[in-house]
Amino acid sequence: MSAKKTNKGISPSRQEDFPAWFQSVVREAEVAELAHVRGSMVIRPWGYAIWELMQAELDREIKASGAQNAYFPLFIPLSYFEAEAKHVEGFAKEMAVVTHHRLEEDPTDPGKLRPGGELAEPLIVRPTSETIIGKSFAKWINSYRDLPLMVNQWANVVRWEMRPRVLLRTTEFLWQEGHTAHADEEEARRETEDMLEVYRRFAESFLAMPVITGEKPEEERFPGAVMSLSIEAMMQDGKALQAGTSHYLGQSFAQAAEIDFLDKDGERRLVHTSSWGVSTRLLGALIMSHGDDVGLRLPPTVAPQQVVVIPVLRGKGDDAIQAEVEALAAEIGERSFQGGPVRVLADFRDREAVAKRWEWTRKGVPLILEIGPRDLDQGVVAARRRDDENLGMETLPRGEVGTSVGPILEQIQSGYFDLAAERLAARTAREIGSLEEFRQWFAGDDEDGAASGFVRAPWSEAAESASIMEELRVSVRCLPFDQQLAPGSACVLTGKPAVVEAVFGKAY
Amino acid sequence: MSAKKTNKGISPSRQEDFPAWFQSVVREAEVAELAHVRGSMVIRPWGYAIWELMQAELDREIKASGAQNAYFPLFIPLSYFEAEAKHVEGFAKEMAVVTHHRLEEDPTDPGKLRPGGELAEPLIVRPTSETIIGKSFAKWINSYRDLPLMVNQWANVVRWEMRPRVLLRTTEFLWQEGHTAHADEEEARRETEDMLEVYRRFAESFLAMPVITGEKPEEERFPGAVMSLSIEAMMQDGKALQAGTSHYLGQSFAQAAEIDFLDKDGERRLVHTSSWGVSTRLLGALIMSHGDDVGLRLPPTVAPQQVVVIPVLRGKGDDAIQAEVEALAAEIGERSFQGGPVRVLADFRDREAVAKRWEWTRKGVPLILEIGPRDLDQGVVAARRRDDENLGMETLPRGEVGTSVGPILEQIQSGYFDLAAERLAARTAREIGSLEEFRQWFAGDDEDGAASGFVRAPWSEAAESASIMEELRVSVRCLPFDQQLAPGSACVLTGKPAVVEAVFGKAY
Repeated sequence: MSAKKTNKGISPSRQEDFPAWFQSVVREAEVAELAHVRGSMVIRPWGYAIWELMQAELDREIKASGAQNAYFPLFIPLSYFEAEAKHVEGFAKEMAVVTHHRLEEDPTDPGKLRPGGELAEPLIVRPTSETIIGKSFAKWINSYRDLPLMVNQWANVVRWEMRPRVLLRTTEFLWQEGHTAHADEEEARRETEDMLEVYRRFAESFLAMPVITGEKPEEERFPGAVMSLSIEAMMQDGKALQAGTSHYLGQSFAQAAEIDFLDKDGERRLVHTSSWGVSTRLLGALIMSHGDDVGLRLPPTVAPQQVVVIPVLRGKGDDAIQAEVEALAAEIGERSFQGGPVRVLADFRDREAVAKRWEWTRKGVPLILEIGPRDLDQGVVAARRRDDENLGMETLPRGEVGTSVGPILEQIQSGYFDLAAERLAARTAREIGSLEEFRQWFAGDDEDGAASGFVRAPWSEAAESASIMEELRVSVRCLPFDQQLAPGSACVLTGKPAVVEAVFGKAY
Repeated sequence: MSAKKTNKGISPSRQEDFPAWFQSVVREAEVAELAHVRGSMVIRPWGYAIWELMQAELDREIKASGAQNAYFPLFIPLSYFEAEAKHVEGFAKEMAVVTHHRLEEDPTDPGKLRPGGELAEPLIVRPTSETIIGKSFAKWINSYRDLPLMVNQWANVVRWEMRPRVLLRTTEFLWQEGHTAHADEEEARRETEDMLEVYRRFAESFLAMPVITGEKPEEERFPGAVMSLSIEAMMQDGKALQAGTSHYLGQSFAQAAEIDFLDKDGERRLVHTSSWGVSTRLLGALIMSHGDDVGLRLPPTVAPQQVVVIPVLRGKGDDAIQAEVEALAAEIGERSFQGGPVRVLADFRDREAVAKRWEWTRKGVPLILEIGPRDLDQGVVAARRRDDENLGMETLPRGEVGTSVGPILEQIQSGYFDLAAERLAARTAREIGSLEEFRQWFAGDDEDGAASGFVRAPWSEAAESASIMEELRVSVRCLPFDQQLAPGSACVLTGKPAVVEAVFGKAY
């Protein structure tokens, strides 16, 4: 592979091997890497800075919704799960178990360490915190005056993964988990819906990622939930990625943790709870939504640097160029994009300008500006827009750069959204009426290959659907909120009378 | 205990039993609680909001210093610690060990769960991340161009605690840990010093908590460090609390993790590393620095609400009062304190006004305002300043409240600092010249009782100091940077020639 190729391309391309392309982008853009422990990942500074921008925006929304942040223990007593295992069908058991609290010298093998100090009761590293937060709620809630109680936690969670994939399926990941308790069902259901709407807005306007909102079918619900809602996005290979979920949990968790309150009439009643979350998986969704064969493409909202200015130095006149680069960066930093100052970096590192240009291109920076001796003489700036398919260099008059930056970033933001929305529309089949067509649509996909997209069609919810979907490795992604079921429609899978319109797809 | 007492006082008082007072404040102000698992704590919304304010400020400073945030795995392979155990004397071994990755039904006891899926290599829940971050550094650093590399992580860590105390010594706590690699010793030492200065400024100007800066004596160094620096604060009982540390680690961690680089001359060399951190322990320091017998007192910088406005409703004319409370809160929210808008809450919850007043007093809100029917008629607002020892209610003309808020908050901020600084000065003995006086100063202190404060005196560093200090439960807190050792001074403990001036104290 030539040096030039190394600089410019991600190998393989999306077309050649989408999953391998994804892993390359994650690595080459220095977003994250699987490392140290099977299934664990390091989130590198560039990837973490993107996550921090997501966090800041979501945190603002979550607080505006009335929830307060708090922090609950990483370790959960085994006994809490025994209570849950009793009331929850399909409760997942792949979790990290702490059994000892000490390392000690291994007397049989000098220089080696082994676990010591066995615990009386094993501790579980939280896979999610419903049980432990529920127990705290039970203590804190006494009367209707304490309701609603709405907390959110930014935390790491652990679910043992047998087939880990960076950012998508890792043993440890970061997320926020919201947990709320309400006096009645209606309010708890409304909270569940409101938070899904927060996630939808966040995905679409912040991540430039159009999503379908809807309810999960019964088989796909969070274990123990009465209703699970999700936002589903389509990746560039046509597969579905569940990008956020919100659950109405009814009273079963309240019952297990004994969360009751004295209502206005002086009667003890159980609360109704909800929970909702998004995770670092969104970093994966972002990459698979917008990336291209050169690397990452970041919507300006989530770009740690929205503009990078690079000096092209030639030895002679370098001081003047450096001064101009600094002046331009300062000027851009005073401009605003979506209510905040433009994030701009003047990159003076000791590297070749062309290497820097391709590094920032690979990392997805929306706008790269360069100033060399000739540009300085001619009063222009060379500009690369990351949304330009040809990645050409445009020439902007120096005096116009300041005023152009905001509008260019707006165009890139909306352009990425439009592209993804067109893909979602174009690759969602709405006219498939028979099982044969359905099979054809999803045919030819292997485990790692590209799926054809989504099918939106009438569904009977009949039990025999399951085996057909399993065979095709397809699932019902959701029952979309905007139901358009024509009366008398037949189920696309079974031919039986349809009861609902469903979105079918292959899932990450 | 009467209802009145419940509202107003923390029992016991600081004088009666300082450690028990501390626990009461933590509970009554709803900052945190030990819960669920021995040694683990829940950080409640009010406490977490304080922590978030600390985080935001420190994060800004850390980024300004050139470090970038990243995230590393929670689990560390046991083998990494074997390498460390070899090169580090005094390496602590009380840590949580994960040995299984599944819960399974216990066939011998239906309904019970037990650990299953034993791991080939046990995993350690990070007690700190030098080893794992070092291994990543080794991969990322190739040439001098990659240096310095400076990362910071906000994370939870676990160190098994046999005698847990909420916020001060818990098995799991939250912190930030910075890790940096440099080409040479001088730069790494400067980084270590610069970060201690960041912590000092943060403690003094943000937490209103004066500190002594200095170097730890050899016995108190972080295991493996060449130099450990700390900021030490004095709590109201005269004890020392180490509030932040910064370590120059030399090349031993670089050697263990094989972090080398190609220098400008084409030679492979080991990097020099540093690490530095502060934790949720600062919440404990804040409480023990500023709290009083009524509860928490928060410097405005770290008060989630700097001003709370409470309507005093009487049935008649309530609408006018509510409107006035809203108008006042809106007006205050447009004022600024230290560069940001004043954080103000109009508290319309369905509770008695007097109960609200005492709740916010207990939680440390700097300024509480109340408007009742009479206030409305007279065009005034009732005000309680949390820094008023008598907790009286002042009357402010309504028209002057807006302009008064900023200056009042500034006075409270500097007042808390001045009080703590006076205490630190008054309770630091500088004239103690003999072991007898030294014994007297620290006499009468039992494990949980009040210490008399600090002694600043010449020290010989002689080995026999250790047993004297152990007997008195005193330690060298630091060798202060502003050394004032007179030539020919004798060691306060041994009478031998002194080599350094030391600060002695009892420690948390």
